[in-house]
Amino acid sequence: MPAPTPDKINRIVLAFSGGLDTSVILKWLQQTYQCEVVTFTADLGQGEELEPARAKARLMGVKEEHIFIDDLREEFVKDYVFPMMRSNALYEGLYLLGTSIARPLIAKRQIEIARMLGADAVSHGATGKGNDQVRFELGYYGLAPDIKVIAPWREWDLTSRTKLIEFAEKHQIPIPRDKRGESPFSTDANMLHTSSEGKVLEDPWDETPDYVYSRTVNPEDAPDAPEYITVDFERGDGVAINGVGMSPATLLETLNEYGRKHGIGRLDLVENRFVGMKSRGMYETPGGTIYHLAHRGIEQLTLDRGAAHLKDELAPKYAELIYNGFWFSPEREMLQAAIDHSQEKVAGTVRLKLYKGSVSVVGRKSPYSLYSEKVVTFEDDAGAYDQRDAAGFIKLNALRLRLLGRRDRE
Amino acid sequence: MPAPTPDKINRIVLAFSGGLDTSVILKWLQQTYQCEVVTFTADLGQGEELEPARAKARLMGVKEEHIFIDDLREEFVKDYVFPMMRSNALYEGLYLLGTSIARPLIAKRQIEIARMLGADAVSHGATGKGNDQVRFELGYYGLAPDIKVIAPWREWDLTSRTKLIEFAEKHQIPIPRDKRGESPFSTDANMLHTSSEGKVLEDPWDETPDYVYSRTVNPEDAPDAPEYITVDFERGDGVAINGVGMSPATLLETLNEYGRKHGIGRLDLVENRFVGMKSRGMYETPGGTIYHLAHRGIEQLTLDRGAAHLKDELAPKYAELIYNGFWFSPEREMLQAAIDHSQEKVAGTVRLKLYKGSVSVVGRKSPYSLYSEKVVTFEDDAGAYDQRDAAGFIKLNALRLRLLGRRDRE
Amino acid sequence: MPAPTPDKINRIVLAFSGGLDTSVILKWLQQTYQCEVVTFTADLGQGEELEPARAKARLMGVKEEHIFIDDLREEFVKDYVFPMMRSNALYEGLYLLGTSIARPLIAKRQIEIARMLGADAVSHGATGKGNDQVRFELGYYGLAPDIKVIAPWREWDLTSRTKLIEFAEKHQIPIPRDKRGESPFSTDANMLHTSSEGKVLEDPWDETPDYVYSRTVNPEDAPDAPEYITVDFERGDGVAINGVGMSPATLLETLNEYGRKHGIGRLDLVENRFVGMKSRGMYETPGGTIYHLAHRGIEQLTLDRGAAHLKDELAPKYAELIYNGFWFSPEREMLQAAIDHSQEKVAGTVRLKLYKGSVSVVGRKSPYSLYSEKVVTFEDDAGAYDQRDAAGFIKLNALRLRLLGRRDRE
Amino acid sequence: MPAPTPDKINRIVLAFSGGLDTSVILKWLQQTYQCEVVTFTADLGQGEELEPARAKARLMGVKEEHIFIDDLREEFVKDYVFPMMRSNALYEGLYLLGTSIARPLIAKRQIEIARMLGADAVSHGATGKGNDQVRFELGYYGLAPDIKVIAPWREWDLTSRTKLIEFAEKHQIPIPRDKRGESPFSTDANMLHTSSEGKVLEDPWDETPDYVYSRTVNPEDAPDAPEYITVDFERGDGVAINGVGMSPATLLETLNEYGRKHGIGRLDLVENRFVGMKSRGMYETPGGTIYHLAHRGIEQLTLDRGAAHLKDELAPKYAELIYNGFWFSPEREMLQAAIDHSQEKVAGTVRLKLYKGSVSVVGRKSPYSLYSEKVVTFEDDAGAYDQRDAAGFIKLNALRLRLLGRRDRE
Repeated sequence: MPAPTPDKINRIVLAFSGGLDTSVILKWLQQTYQCEVVTFTADLGQGEELEPARAKARLMGVKEEHIFIDDLREEFVKDYVFPMMRSNALYEGLYLLGTSIARPLIAKRQIEIARMLGADAVSHGATGKGNDQVRFELGYYGLAPDIKVIAPWREWDLTSRTKLIEFAEKHQIPIPRDKRGESPFSTDANMLHTSSEGKVLEDPWDETPDYVYSRTVNPEDAPDAPEYITVDFERGDGVAINGVGMSPATLLETLNEYGRKHGIGRLDLVENRFVGMKSRGMYETPGGTIYHLAHRGIEQLTLDRGAAHLKDELAPKYAELIYNGFWFSPEREMLQAAIDHSQEKVAGTVRLKLYKGSVSVVGRKSPYSLYSEKVVTFEDDAGAYDQRDAAGFIKLNALRLRLLGRRDRE
Repeated sequence: MPAPTPDKINRIVLAFSGGLDTSVILKWLQQTYQCEVVTFTADLGQGEELEPARAKARLMGVKEEHIFIDDLREEFVKDYVFPMMRSNALYEGLYLLGTSIARPLIAKRQIEIARMLGADAVSHGATGKGNDQVRFELGYYGLAPDIKVIAPWREWDLTSRTKLIEFAEKHQIPIPRDKRGESPFSTDANMLHTSSEGKVLEDPWDETPDYVYSRTVNPEDAPDAPEYITVDFERGDGVAINGVGMSPATLLETLNEYGRKHGIGRLDLVENRFVGMKSRGMYETPGGTIYHLAHRGIEQLTLDRGAAHLKDELAPKYAELIYNGFWFSPEREMLQAAIDHSQEKVAGTVRLKLYKGSVSVVGRKSPYSLYSEKVVTFEDDAGAYDQRDAAGFIKLNALRLRLLGRRDRE
Repeated sequence: MPAPTPDKINRIVLAFSGGLDTSVILKWLQQTYQCEVVTFTADLGQGEELEPARAKARLMGVKEEHIFIDDLREEFVKDYVFPMMRSNALYEGLYLLGTSIARPLIAKRQIEIARMLGADAVSHGATGKGNDQVRFELGYYGLAPDIKVIAPWREWDLTSRTKLIEFAEKHQIPIPRDKRGESPFSTDANMLHTSSEGKVLEDPWDETPDYVYSRTVNPEDAPDAPEYITVDFERGDGVAINGVGMSPATLLETLNEYGRKHGIGRLDLVENRFVGMKSRGMYETPGGTIYHLAHRGIEQLTLDRGAAHLKDELAPKYAELIYNGFWFSPEREMLQAAIDHSQEKVAGTVRLKLYKGSVSVVGRKSPYSLYSEKVVTFEDDAGAYDQRDAAGFIKLNALRLRLLGRRDRE
Repeated sequence: MPAPTPDKINRIVLAFSGGLDTSVILKWLQQTYQCEVVTFTADLGQGEELEPARAKARLMGVKEEHIFIDDLREEFVKDYVFPMMRSNALYEGLYLLGTSIARPLIAKRQIEIARMLGADAVSHGATGKGNDQVRFELGYYGLAPDIKVIAPWREWDLTSRTKLIEFAEKHQIPIPRDKRGESPFSTDANMLHTSSEGKVLEDPWDETPDYVYSRTVNPEDAPDAPEYITVDFERGDGVAINGVGMSPATLLETLNEYGRKHGIGRLDLVENRFVGMKSRGMYETPGGTIYHLAHRGIEQLTLDRGAAHLKDELAPKYAELIYNGFWFSPEREMLQAAIDHSQEKVAGTVRLKLYKGSVSVVGRKSPYSLYSEKVVTFEDDAGAYDQRDAAGFIKLNALRLRLLGRRDRE
C-alpha cells in the first residue's frame, strides 16, 4: 500500500512517549503531512524520566510551546482507576485492566490540547493488531467526532523493524542501544500496572522468564515473614493506609511498594483481544491487586446483597466495555451511575496480610457494617431472628418447584 | 413454641452424620413421631470414619437394613463438582461453593432411599438460620414434591446447647468429650472443602485463629521451593495430573494433597446468606482452588471469546442459584446446558506453579488451541492479518459515538 | 389457628379502602389489639368516591384527626409511574405493572403517617396468596425496619366469605348489596390500570367475559376511524399531548381517555407470582399502553444503541424487582440511576395512531435526534460514510469465528 | 477507488435474486474476475416467481448445472424461524428479526454449493451500509474460514443508480420498466416478513404511505368481525392450526394468511444497525406476530418461573446476536441450548382473537399446565397453600432490607 494521499492537515497532536517508535512517527508525520506536530507526553506514573522526551521533541523541531508533558497521575487514579475499581471489574475473570484504563485519559488530554491549539488531527503509536488503537481512537472520536485520526502503523510502509531503524538512521533519530537488536518483548506501563507481551512470551506453554518482571520481586525472594497493612475506604474509594490519609495517587503508589516487596500481582494470561485474536500477556499489578481485594473486603461488610449481586452481574460487561475502549460511551456511564450509587456507605477499614505473592483479607470493620452478630450468632439471639420464618420462606421458594415436580417427576 | 402436633408419619429418612446433633435428632424423631427412622450417612470425602455412625444408629435401635452408609465420592465430583467447575462460578466473586454443591446430592440420595423404603418424610440437622436448610429442602421438594420435611432445629424446644446435652444425657446418647463444652466454631467438610463459622469467627475484624484450619498447612510452613504440576482436561473436566490419568474423585483428592502441602485455598469471607443476613466464614478449598484456576487456564486457550464472555456473564447467576439451593431447578439446568455446550473442545494441558499459598497458571497447550502465533505475532505475519482492516473496524465501532458526540459534545 | 396473642400495640395505621374487607379489618384490629386504628385512604386515581371511606371510618369510631384521605395522584405518576416507564419494563414480556407500582407509594405514605402519629404498627388488606402482601410489607420494612406489621388475612379465623359477612353483621358494618353474594371476580384499580382476577377468570382457557372490563370499550365498539395524537417528551417523561403541556397525572388521565375510547390496553395474562404460583389476570392499562409505546418511539430516535441495548438487558430484572415488591431496594435504585442517566436527551414528539384496540407509532422527531438521513441514505451520501470501512469491520468481527472454523469445521 | 486488483479466483457462488442489482453483479463478477459464476437463488417463501432468475442466469452465460434454485422453505421455518421463536426474541423490544434470520441459511447453502463445486469465492448483493453484508459474511467466514468474499457494492465504482443502469444497458441486461426510475423504497421479503426502507421512508416523522404495505390489508379494511383461531404447540414449536396438523412452513403460511386478512403485524421502527447508524424501516410480519404471541401464551401455562425469567433475561442478547449476524457462533448456540432445554413441555393449545390489526391470546390449555386452580383459588383451597408461610417468606426477604434500613433510614 502506498503512503496515503494525505488530506490537508494543519496540525497534529501526537501521543509521544519519546521512545524510538513514537520518535520515528513524529518525523514521519512531519514529512508526510508537512505540518506542525505537537507532542503530548503523559506522566501516568510509568516510572520513566519524561524530560528526555522534551529534548527529543526539540531536536526534531517541535516548537517549545508545542511540547506538552503533563503529570496526570492524580487524575488517572482518582477519575479512572478508582471508579473502575468500584466495579470490581476483572476482564475474563482475572485481568485488572491496567492498560485499558489509561488510554481514555490520554485520548481525552490529547483532544483537549488539539482543541486548545486548533489542531485538526491526532496520532498515536499503537499497532494495527492490538486493542490500544481501538481504545485511543474510540476515545478521540467519542470526544471529538470530526477529528482526523492518523495511525501510522496502519498506514506507512515501515513494516519491519529493519525499515524502522533505517528510517531512524536516515533522519538522525537517536536509537537506544538496546533497540538496535530485537527487544525480547514489548511493554506498557503506568501507575496501575506493567504489561509485557510478544516474542519470548508468544508461546503460551512457556513460562514467563524472570527477566520480564520489572515491578515485583519474585515471590521466592520476598520477605519470609508476612506483613499486615490496613486500607481505609470512604464512599468506595481508598483514603488511607495504616491509618495515614493520602491522595489517590499516593495511596496507589504506596500499595505498589507493598506489592513489589511481597511479589504480589503477577498474572500470566491468554486473553481475547477486541480485534478478534487471542494474545498472551504478562501483567504486574502490585498495588491494584491489593486494592481490588481490599475493596471487595469492605464491600462484604457494607454492601447490601441486592446491590452486591447486581454489581457482580454487571461487572463482566463493565470490564468488557473498558477493555474494548468504550470508556466514553453512554453504556459505561450508565453502569458507572449504577455502581457509584451503591458506594455511598462503602467505608471502613480492611486488614490485609501480604506474603510471598499472595494477599488475603483477614479482617474488616466499618461504622456502616450491615453484619449483625446479634442476628447471625449461633448463640441465643434474643429474638433477633425467628427460625420459624425460615419454614415459610422455604415453602414458598419451593412452591414452583413442587408444582413442577408434580408434573414432571412423579 | 410447643413441639408440633405431628402429622402421622410412618417412616423418616434422616441425613445422619453420627455426631451429637444428628444423634439427638434421631432420638427426638423416634420419640416425637413414634415411627421408624432410617439413617443415611453420605461419604463425600469429609475425611471422617463413618462406621461409628453405624454403631450409633444401631445403639438407638435403627434396624440394620435401615442404616445406609453410601460412598458418593465419585458421583459427587463427577456429577456435581465438575459440572459446577465448568462454569467458573464464584459466589460473591470469591467463594467456590464447597458446601452448597454437596447438599443437592445428599438430598437426592435421601429421596431415593425414601422412595425405596416407602418413607413419607425426610429430616436433616441444619439450623434455621443457615443456607443448608434451604438447600436440603429445595432439593427434597424439587425431587419429591409431596414429601414431608422435618427440620428439628426449627421445631423443637432444645433451643440451647445445655438443653441439647441434657436431652442427650437423659437418653443415653454418647457425648464426645469435646462437645460437653462449647465448640469454638462449627464446621462442614467434604472432598471439595471445609468450612468453619461461628463463635471465634463471629467478629469479622478478628483474624481467623490458626487452629481453625484443618485442610491446609499455614503458607508460612509450606515448602520453601515452588512445585510445578500439570492438569490435563478433556471436554472441560480434569482427567490427569502430571500425565497420570485418574478418576474425578482421585483427581480432586490428589489436588487436595498438593493444595494442603502448599497452603493453597484459604478464604476468609463475609458473605450474604440466602436467608437475608451476612455471615463470616472461613473456607479451605485446596484442590478446588487449583482446579478452578487450571480450568480457566485451559479455557483461555480453547474457548472462543463469545463463548467465554457469555460464560462470564452467566456465572454470577449460576453461582447464586447453587448457593441458594436451586440445583434441581429448570434455570440451573438451562444454564448448565449452555455451559456444557461450550466445553466440548476444552481440552489440553495446564501447567501450574504452587508456592506458599498461591497457585499460578504458567503454561497451557492444547490440540484445540485457538491461539494463533501466526496471527498475533509482532513479527511479519505473512498476511495472516491485515492491519488496515482495523481502520474500518474502529470507524464503524465509533460511528454511533461520533453521531452522539456531534449531538452532545460539540 | 387461634387469633394470635397480640403483642401490645398502641396505634395501627391501616391502608383503608372503605370497602367491606378493610372495614371488617378495621373493626377486627380495634377488637383484637384494643388500640386506636388510624385509617389511610389513598387517592391514586382509582376512580371511586373516597368520602364514603371517611364516613365509614367515623362510624367505626376512628377519630377525625386519624382519618387520612390523601390525593397522591401527581406523586404517583411523577415519582413512580414515569420512572418505571423510563425503563420500558414489562413483566414477563407483557405486563405493565400497574398494581405493583402503586404499592410502594401506599406503603411509604402509611409509614409517614405512622411516624407522624407515633403509631407502632401498620396493617393492610391483602391476602396471603398474593403479591401485594409482599409489596406492602417489603415497603414497610424497608422504610421502617422495626415497624410491627399486621396482615389480618394471614392471622384471623375469618377464613370464608360467610364468616366475614357474619362478622360484619354482628358488628353493624354496612354490607354493600352486591357483596352479599359472591363477587364474580376481584379487582384493583389506580390511574395506571385496573386488574381483575379470580373466580370467573380462574380457568385460563375461558375467554374473559365482557362484563369484566371497566376501563376500555370493546375494540369492536370503538370508533371506526383511527385517531392520531402526539405526545411530547422531555428528559424521558411525557409533558404534552397534541402540543398541550400538562402535569404527569393529567397527561396519564388524558391518555386513559384516548385509550378507553379506542379499546386500547387490554391484556389477558397467566403470570408467575412471587409467592410461587401461577395466576391468571386481566389487565386494562389504556393510557399506560399508549405511553409505553410512545416512550419507546422517542427513544428510538434519541437514544444511543449502547444505552438502548443496556436498557433492554436490564429491563427484565427491573420489572421483576418492581413486581416482587423491591421498589425500596438498593438494586432497584441502582438500576434507576443507570436508566435515568440515559434519559437526559430523550425528548421530542411522537405521533401515534389509535384504532380499535391497537396503538402504533407512525412518526417521531426530536431536536436531539441521532438519526442521520445523510449517513443512512440510499442516495449518494457525500462521504458521510465510507462503505469500505465495512470490510474491515466485518473482517475483524469474523476473525475469531474464522479461527474457530479452522479448528472445528474444516 | 479503482476496481480492486482481483486475486485469482476460479469460481464464485453468487446469491442471486434475478433482480437488476444481482444481474449487474453477475455480469460485473464475470468481467472483473474472468471466471465462472454460479448462481444460487433461494426460495424462502418470498412470494416471487423464481424461474425468471434461471432465464436471466442462462442469458448471461451461466452453465445449466451452475444454476441453483432451491426450495428452502421448510428448512427455513423449522431450523431457523422456530428455534428463534422459542426464545421470544424481539430486537430493540419490537422487531421480529425477519430479515436477520434468513441470512444465515442463505450463507450456509451458498457455502455448501461452493464446497460441492470447488468454488473459492462467494458473493452477495448487500450494500456497504447495511446489516445484511455483515450477516452474510459472518456466515460465510464462520462456515468456511478461508473462503474469498466478494462484496461488489463495497468494491466497484457503480456508485450511483445512473451508473448501474448504464452498465446494465451496455451489457444488455434487461431492466424492468419500474427500475428505470428511482424505486420509492427498497424491500426484502421471505416467508416470515417483508421489510421496506429507504427513500420515502427516510424521514422518521412521515407516516409510512399505504402503498408500501404488501403483505397485510390496512386494519381499517380488515373484516369487521373478529376471528378466533387456535394454535397447538409441541416441544415449543407450532404443530397445528385449528386442530389441523401441518408442517412448519405450511403453518407459518397459514398464519400469514390470517395475519394478512386482519391487518396484523405492521411495525414502523427506527432501529440501530450493527454498522453504527440508525435506520427507519417498515416491517410486515403477519404470521410471525401471531406466532410470537401464541408461543408466549403457551409458555405462560407450561414454563416454570425460573425458566421463564431466565429466558426473558437472555432474550435481548439472543436477539442482538441474530440481528448482528452471529447465528453461527458459539454464544448463539449456547443460548439456544439453554432455551431449547426449557421447551420440552411447552405444549398445548392457545386460542387467539384476531381483529383489525391486533392479536390477543384469550385462552390456553395444556396437558403440562403448571397452573393450579387448587392453589391459586380465592375459594377455600383445602390446604393446598398455607397462607402463614407467606409471613416467613416476607420476613426473610425483608431481613436484609431491615438491616439496611436500620443503618440508613433511622
